[in-house]
Parts: sequence; C-alpha cells; structure tokens
Amino acid sequence: MTPTPINLAQKFSLFSEQWVPKIIAKFEDYHFKLAKLEGDFVWHSHPESDEAFLVLGGSLRIDFRDGAVTLNAGEMLVVPKGVEHKPFAASECQVMVLVRAGTVNTGDAPESGLTSEADAWLVEE
Amino acid sequence: MTPTPINLAQKFSLFSEQWVPKIIAKFEDYHFKLAKLEGDFVWHSHPESDEAFLVLGGSLRIDFRDGAVTLNAGEMLVVPKGVEHKPFAASECQVMVLVRAGTVNTGDAPESGLTSEADAWLVEE
Repeated sequence: MTPTPINLAQKFSLFSEQWVPKIIAKFEDYHFKLAKLEGDFVWHSHPESDEAFLVLGGSLRIDFRDGAVTLNAGEMLVVPKGVEHKPFAASECQVMVLVRAGTVNTGDAPESGLTSEADAWLVEE
Repeated sequence: MTPTPINLAQKFSLFSEQWVPKIIAKFEDYHFKLAKLEGDFVWHSHPESDEAFLVLGGSLRIDFRDGAVTLNAGEMLVVPKGVEHKPFAASECQVMVLVRAGTVNTGDAPESGLTSEADAWLVEE
C-alpha cells in the first residue's frame, strides 16, 4: 500500500491550540507530532524517551539546567531521555516533535493545565 | 549537558555527494541523516526499520509497487519496514531521513555503486 504524503503546512492549518501536540505519523514505536507553542512551559524530563524538536516556523528557546538554546526555523535538537528541559517561545512557533508513543508532554512534572493527552492524532475535518 | 542545536541548511552546505546519507543526530537507536539525491535509485526495502523522509529542498518522487508519491519541500512520508520503494529526483533534492542505526541505504538490494556506509557521520571541517 502506498504511504500517504504529509504536508506539514497543511497539517498546521488544521489546528490552533497551543501546547497540544498532534500526532501526524507513526514511526515504529514513536510518533511524529506537530505543536504550536507560545509562552512558558514547565520544567520536565522524559525518563522513557529521547525527544527531537525541529522548528518549522518562529523561534523556540529550550532552557536546560546548565544553559539555553534557541532554535529558529530549520534548526533541530535532540533532548536525551532524562534530561530536564523547559521550552519557551516569545511568540508562537511551530515545531515537529519525535517522541516514543505514550509519552506525555509534561513528562515527569506534576499534571497541570499544560498536560495533554499522550497519543492524540491530528483530526482531519 | 546542553544539547547542540543543528542547523539543517548549514549541515547541507558541508557536503555535495549525492546518495550518501550523513548522520547529523542520534535519537535512541535511530539516526537522523541528511542526503542529497538526484536521478534514479534502486528498488529496495529495509526489513529491519521504518524509514521517514522529510523533503527540505526540491522534489522527491518515491515509487512503490502499487503507485508513486511526490514529496515537495515541507512534505514527509514514512515507509514501513519491508515495503519496497525506489526514490527518484529529476533534479537534486535535499532530504532528511530517520532510520534505525546500522541500516544500509540500499537495504536488501544487492550491493552496488549506490550502496554507502550505514553509519557515516557528517564530517565537520
């Protein structure tokens, strides 16, 4: 069966919620997700999964306990499992994330209003 | 330790070989690789790994036994493990690939001039 191509800009046009990652593709035991981020997130880590971020629009700062990194569109980074980090975006940015299926966005931080369902697919309407 | 940001355009500027995937990041047991592709590749599959393609410049056609898909910049696709496919690019395209470490680009096809080392990191010079 021919796999379906995924147009990232078209997928981003389908939702506006911030901090709610949407699955767009399954890759083995992992998910590619899209998210729109703005403002400050919470410190957390994912003990069970590396997490890759690829910025597709805007800028994303990721704070680590020993420094901070700013990613602009076309830049990526892999956060190793267990490494504490805190995303921040001064204005809305668009990111693609790769993470193990079942991984909650707020990781090992206490559940909060920023916590979203781990495995929510982007709904096509 | 703060992870290193990866600028994809800068990484692409560091090599010109076609059909020679270069590792830019490790993600668990997988590698993110960049490649420049032009012309016709060989039919093959990867029995041991899904393979994700994200086109970052130009256009990539991927033929499957029951159809073909064209990916333009900003479009991606996941080829499930074991599914035969054949990439083709009429003019040079730039792609990012995610695949299990140790996966050879020509998969289960006979080794040929297109076969490149499985785990070659992009050399920074």
